[in-house]
Amino acid sequence: METTLKGTEVTVRIGPELPTVIIGEKINPTGRKWLTKKLTEGNLEILRGEATQQLEDGAAVLDVNVGAASVNEADLLPRAVKIIQDTVGVPLCIDTADKVALEAALKVYQGKPLINSVNGEEKNLEVVLPLVAEYGAAVIGLTMDDDGIPKQAEKRLEIAEKIVQRAESLGIPREDVLIDCLALTVSAEPDAALITLETIELVRKELGVNQALGHSNVSFGLPDREVINRVALGMVIRAGVNAPIVNAAEAKQSILAADLLLGRDQYAMNYIKYYRAHKQ
Amino acid sequence: METTLKGTEVTVRIGPELPTVIIGEKINPTGRKWLTKKLTEGNLEILRGEATQQLEDGAAVLDVNVGAASVNEADLLPRAVKIIQDTVGVPLCIDTADKVALEAALKVYQGKPLINSVNGEEKNLEVVLPLVAEYGAAVIGLTMDDDGIPKQAEKRLEIAEKIVQRAESLGIPREDVLIDCLALTVSAEPDAALITLETIELVRKELGVNQALGHSNVSFGLPDREVINRVALGMVIRAGVNAPIVNAAEAKQSILAADLLLGRDQYAMNYIKYYRAHKQ
Repeated sequence: METTLKGTEVTVRIGPELPTVIIGEKINPTGRKWLTKKLTEGNLEILRGEATQQLEDGAAVLDVNVGAASVNEADLLPRAVKIIQDTVGVPLCIDTADKVALEAALKVYQGKPLINSVNGEEKNLEVVLPLVAEYGAAVIGLTMDDDGIPKQAEKRLEIAEKIVQRAESLGIPREDVLIDCLALTVSAEPDAALITLETIELVRKELGVNQALGHSNVSFGLPDREVINRVALGMVIRAGVNAPIVNAAEAKQSILAADLLLGRDQYAMNYIKYYRAHKQ
Repeated sequence: METTLKGTEVTVRIGPELPTVIIGEKINPTGRKWLTKKLTEGNLEILRGEATQQLEDGAAVLDVNVGAASVNEADLLPRAVKIIQDTVGVPLCIDTADKVALEAALKVYQGKPLINSVNGEEKNLEVVLPLVAEYGAAVIGLTMDDDGIPKQAEKRLEIAEKIVQRAESLGIPREDVLIDCLALTVSAEPDAALITLETIELVRKELGVNQALGHSNVSFGLPDREVINRVALGMVIRAGVNAPIVNAAEAKQSILAADLLLGRDQYAMNYIKYYRAHKQ
């Protein structure tokens, strides 16, 4: 099952036998005060550099989130999408919880974007999926619903099934739904990562869809987070994640190592090329 | 299923729900010229420091291999076992292909050792397993036989089954056989790591036995080997390896991260303790 995303110049394919696709997470004001300040001032030129840097770091798709308490997303998000598409040709992942902002961004987007996200809440499904269908986008489905995030892998799978079925009933093909099994913080809940892994394996086995994962939270609050993130990347990519949402600069080499280990990088050509360009 | 190993003072338990047990690989002259020189001269005092250092680095069991072209293993191996057991109380893993050396080492060993290794070759099974039974040891079974190392996971599983069954027929309980699914070099053979992973998963599912893995070869010949080894450790520990044979100094933190992610380290206590002792 293959997902295709399109930017102004680049088409990206996501699939189980293909190299892992990095969705760059950095265009997001959460925890980045200077970016919040620029966005609040309406200064979007800064996003050009943020976009090109992530491509250099190895991202193939860029998440675009301009949500902050002090900004008008419905105004800012389409402008951000325009300026980023004016700068880079890769597909974007439009990341917002604001329906008006989402539709405004979809209207100006050129190509086939990924939408981040829909979830299993009735109201959310009703709002987001018709937009996905109307604009011919792909969408990330989060395994949570009106009751929150289930602690059992089987219940998260049920939500994933519900999202996929609801999408199909609106004419959105299954390959345009990426499931995100939700990585939670392991320091707060000892079984958090294990439940996520089990869900990823179940979703791969039962639904066969491609999978995104907002991955970096798993190590929140712990020292040497990059060690935990690296080991976890190996586990989740083996389990079935093929489009992790990460900081490309930190995660790229580990992801290339994972692809190498899983037979998706013949004779280590991509791994060695990255090493020569970035590490020597 | 739980494997128990005993040294002079310490008992080590290996099992699927327990924290991963590191078998320290460093008492081995392969690729270490100065150690070969010391062993050739019969200077075994050096092993005391090698043993204690690995315990500080986080090993729980120590592999002991003194095989080199220029040494008489049958003489040297039992002396090495004695001097190491005189220094540290943990269980040892007696690593030799020489039957006479193996029996001489078993004679002097105090406790219940691990033997590295038996494989599926008829002649090898006939030589090694009776010694395992006679001395009440545990043993590592390699998934290779007279035809070499199979490229198919199912065939490696067949060899593992043969070793386990032959052991049981001699009264060696299944929990005293650790299977090693053999990590080969991924730069030479693109599917090498994937076949190993699939075998590990099959062996866990079909036989349920504990698993060792001589892990470090996977990255041979590639740059930044520690990145590949770290990502691979996440994958193989998730798949079912619970006693990797590694350089503890390099692998310990990643292994603690893997245990944390798999719910074997409540509230990250072991991970944080290691960080405080080694990294701050």
